[in-house]
Amino acid sequence: MNRLARYLPILEWGRQYGSSTLTNDLVAAVIVTIMLIPQSLAYAMLAGLPPEVGLYASILPLVAYAIFGTSRTLAVGPVAVVSLMTATAVGEIAAQGSESYLIAATLLALLSGAMLVAMGLFRLGFVANFLSHPVISGFITASGLLIAAGQVKHLLGVPSGGHTLPEIVKSLVANLHVTNLATLVIGVGVLAFLYFVRLRLKPLLISLGMKPRLADIITKAAPVFAVAATILAVTVLNLDEAGVQPVGAIPQGLPLPALPIVDLDLIRALAAPALLISLIGFVESVSVAQTLAAKRRQRIVPDQELIGLGAANIASGISAGYPVTGGFARSVVNFDAGAKTPAAGIFTAIGIALATLFLTPLLANLPEATLAATIIVAVLSLVDYSAVRRVWIYSKADFSAMAATILGTLLLGVEIGVVMGVLLSLLMHLYRTSRPHMAVVGQVAGTEHFRNVDRHQVITSPEILSLRVDESLYFANTRYLEDRIAELVAERPELKHIVLMCSAVNAIDASALESLEEINHRLHDAGITLHLSEVKGPVMDRLKRSSFLDDLTGRVFLSQYEAIAELNASR
Amino acid sequence: MNRLARYLPILEWGRQYGSSTLTNDLVAAVIVTIMLIPQSLAYAMLAGLPPEVGLYASILPLVAYAIFGTSRTLAVGPVAVVSLMTATAVGEIAAQGSESYLIAATLLALLSGAMLVAMGLFRLGFVANFLSHPVISGFITASGLLIAAGQVKHLLGVPSGGHTLPEIVKSLVANLHVTNLATLVIGVGVLAFLYFVRLRLKPLLISLGMKPRLADIITKAAPVFAVAATILAVTVLNLDEAGVQPVGAIPQGLPLPALPIVDLDLIRALAAPALLISLIGFVESVSVAQTLAAKRRQRIVPDQELIGLGAANIASGISAGYPVTGGFARSVVNFDAGAKTPAAGIFTAIGIALATLFLTPLLANLPEATLAATIIVAVLSLVDYSAVRRVWIYSKADFSAMAATILGTLLLGVEIGVVMGVLLSLLMHLYRTSRPHMAVVGQVAGTEHFRNVDRHQVITSPEILSLRVDESLYFANTRYLEDRIAELVAERPELKHIVLMCSAVNAIDASALESLEEINHRLHDAGITLHLSEVKGPVMDRLKRSSFLDDLTGRVFLSQYEAIAELNASR
Repeated sequence: MNRLARYLPILEWGRQYGSSTLTNDLVAAVIVTIMLIPQSLAYAMLAGLPPEVGLYASILPLVAYAIFGTSRTLAVGPVAVVSLMTATAVGEIAAQGSESYLIAATLLALLSGAMLVAMGLFRLGFVANFLSHPVISGFITASGLLIAAGQVKHLLGVPSGGHTLPEIVKSLVANLHVTNLATLVIGVGVLAFLYFVRLRLKPLLISLGMKPRLADIITKAAPVFAVAATILAVTVLNLDEAGVQPVGAIPQGLPLPALPIVDLDLIRALAAPALLISLIGFVESVSVAQTLAAKRRQRIVPDQELIGLGAANIASGISAGYPVTGGFARSVVNFDAGAKTPAAGIFTAIGIALATLFLTPLLANLPEATLAATIIVAVLSLVDYSAVRRVWIYSKADFSAMAATILGTLLLGVEIGVVMGVLLSLLMHLYRTSRPHMAVVGQVAGTEHFRNVDRHQVITSPEILSLRVDESLYFANTRYLEDRIAELVAERPELKHIVLMCSAVNAIDASALESLEEINHRLHDAGITLHLSEVKGPVMDRLKRSSFLDDLTGRVFLSQYEAIAELNASR
Repeated sequence: MNRLARYLPILEWGRQYGSSTLTNDLVAAVIVTIMLIPQSLAYAMLAGLPPEVGLYASILPLVAYAIFGTSRTLAVGPVAVVSLMTATAVGEIAAQGSESYLIAATLLALLSGAMLVAMGLFRLGFVANFLSHPVISGFITASGLLIAAGQVKHLLGVPSGGHTLPEIVKSLVANLHVTNLATLVIGVGVLAFLYFVRLRLKPLLISLGMKPRLADIITKAAPVFAVAATILAVTVLNLDEAGVQPVGAIPQGLPLPALPIVDLDLIRALAAPALLISLIGFVESVSVAQTLAAKRRQRIVPDQELIGLGAANIASGISAGYPVTGGFARSVVNFDAGAKTPAAGIFTAIGIALATLFLTPLLANLPEATLAATIIVAVLSLVDYSAVRRVWIYSKADFSAMAATILGTLLLGVEIGVVMGVLLSLLMHLYRTSRPHMAVVGQVAGTEHFRNVDRHQVITSPEILSLRVDESLYFANTRYLEDRIAELVAERPELKHIVLMCSAVNAIDASALESLEEINHRLHDAGITLHLSEVKGPVMDRLKRSSFLDDLTGRVFLSQYEAIAELNASR
């Protein structure tokens, strides 16, 4: 039972489900449903898919996450960045609008789901740790800019394309002369309205005497008003004849669950993007879930989150959807609207299913420009220049990984961008640890404490060198250690003892062990005794498995203080 | 002048050159020349090249290294492992024996030389550090086995091929029925003779009253005797008619220096193997040079070694040679024979050039089986099973990288093998540091020292948690830190203070900074104060660039002892 409950969190919260929780969850579900309908259409358009695919991706995946996920309030579904990544991945192997484009997008969701579940079962969630904060933050900022630029064509009503910023801009400029005025008016109008809502509406309503909570809900629902108003305008004024592009007829009814056609060549082509989408989606989703859980002192289980998110994507893959993940904006709305359990997600799914069955005929006249404006407002809020500034001030190495991610994403595309960032941050880490900081230390007078001779007033002796190595010793830095010790010895003719202070040495691998043996041997030839101090337990355990401690010319001291005291006493 | 001398070490030793040094160098050169002639022919055969190419690769490269290299005694030229790598790389793009095979091998030397020089000028020698000791040692062992297996066909006198152990064995078995008896007798005879020389000859000669030094030289020169004897046998007994394959006519004369034909497609195809050959060759060469330099208390300069080795390969590339590096066996012979300066290398080059001009007609009847036996004896001495055992006992992680290298090299080929080993050792390092060791510590009674509560008798308090993090904090392990602290807090209801003991934290990157801010914030919400202690200078400098220290709820203490003393006092 316990084991089952670990993999099925629904068994835990489901048993305590009561009527007050039900009311809370229902209210939240209604609000999220209203918000999710235009978003689902918009992100499907961003992914290059027909609008109904966005709706399908907002039904079964929500139910699957409610069963397997550990966050009480995370709302999954189509999100901007993953939609862009889907468009890039699928666009490389099929033409937009074709049947094979649809098949590939669905298969991508299934693949990504299978990968996430596998990572969850094998506890491989740590892989996501290799996406550093600066890389993720840079990637999301750059994706936001890229998405916004890609939507401008819908505001202008011009044909255009491209997966990178230069391509998009070039294509836009070339088509600028065919801008459609009616589309432009609708697009810019909605954009202005949404910005007004976001920046001004809530304070305005509150100053007019409305309760803050109601004002908040109205503000969040404003995009629905823009949707209704522009549908009405297109219908009444026959704007489609004036060149405004509507989303067109959306098929009514729900897809029957079915496995997509499995094609090995297609799987091979989609495997790498599926992995990237899985990792990016997981990192985004987990950080949203963790932030919300901390606010209510709840805990999420990252490895089970992989399974929850994987189940959601598999559900999307078998119900004609496309890759989904936990979205920041909708999860916050869900949380603020008072959702208490994942049942809110199930109720949202029912809401979207009902809308798909009964509301879609009303949406046929919805202008694409309205959706584009919705997307632009949503993604530009992801762009975070202050994070770029903070990282620049804190660390040039982290900044360079961030800059590589941003420039790579904007100029070469999302996949290359994020891979460049990850590789650069790994290389930077390796480079840094391959040239470790080493400090010659001395005793702080009156204490048992030893600090850097260059930074503190300390006591030293010409016959004893205390060297603190500030890094684990491993293959990448052993040669550097050998060189540094040779240098220090050459500068000190009176030297008789070297004490390597190992308080910061967390591991010694086989390469470093060979180097230490070599150093011990060379120092012995030069009449210098090598000692160690403050060797950590796990490191000491390992050294005992080799012959190094037998060959060591000196001793291993518990503390640097003890080492210096005994070496001074024996002089 | 100083700057010039840094790049041209010959200017330094050349100025002090005297007649006693000259005598020493000349003697060493004669011995090395005698040893190098059969080796050059054998390794050229191993690389799939005509025998004269091995001789050409032993002339100009030696002169170039003497001018630019920093080791006094390193002997460069064709070596076994690099010859095998050349055969693999060139074999993929041209048929053995063709003109384009020759061109590609020469271009490979030029490319590899250019890469080495560039790495030297840009001080990129640290890249070689990513080849860990277990990976190199595993690679050399596996290459040795692979080379030996590949030479068996010459002992049997059968046609055979393959780049991996299964291919080689399969091909040998299929051709076993056409074994040539005369060839087998010569091959096995030479093999037995060489093993007798290696294991027994020197003690035998000494017991017969010969001086050890002379006995040593005779032992080293024994392969030349095998060469002379088998040439004589073939010539007198007309063994070529009995099916013994001789190396055949070797063109007399020296190649004029010339740039090889530069073909961009060829360069692209050879770039990756050239990089691998450069790195492997550099690592081998530098470790030989360092070992020999340490014996005479000399120093080598790794970045200048890159230039020296690069110059040698460029020289090989413009004189119809193929990739070269510093060889272990011949360098030891050079050292033992008394070489004092790189001039010995120049004299050796003159010796080989004279041999190429005047001795080659004598070599036409040399059986390939003799060369194969020479190679087998040389490479099997590289196979080091005890290193495998030592690494297995010391560290399973290092062992798995070593095993991957050995199995990859034997089963999939040299290039894949070494790449697998490097990637696996990097991944292992990242995985280890992503789950850092953290110890709850307490004060060792009567000292200012703090150790792990699980390993030592220490003093602790329920209100104060001292946590020592045994790793630098960076993107791969920040999530783990957050989880661990949440766990520790949940177990300790009375907790008021956490002191993070940072003596082993050598760096905090931007991702870890964000995590620490988050941890500080969450602990604050739980009524717990976060303190740091023993923060290193460079880490502290960096933290001061962020707002973390202003937001930190607790303090930063110089030592853990001070932290506990003050927190206890303020209760």
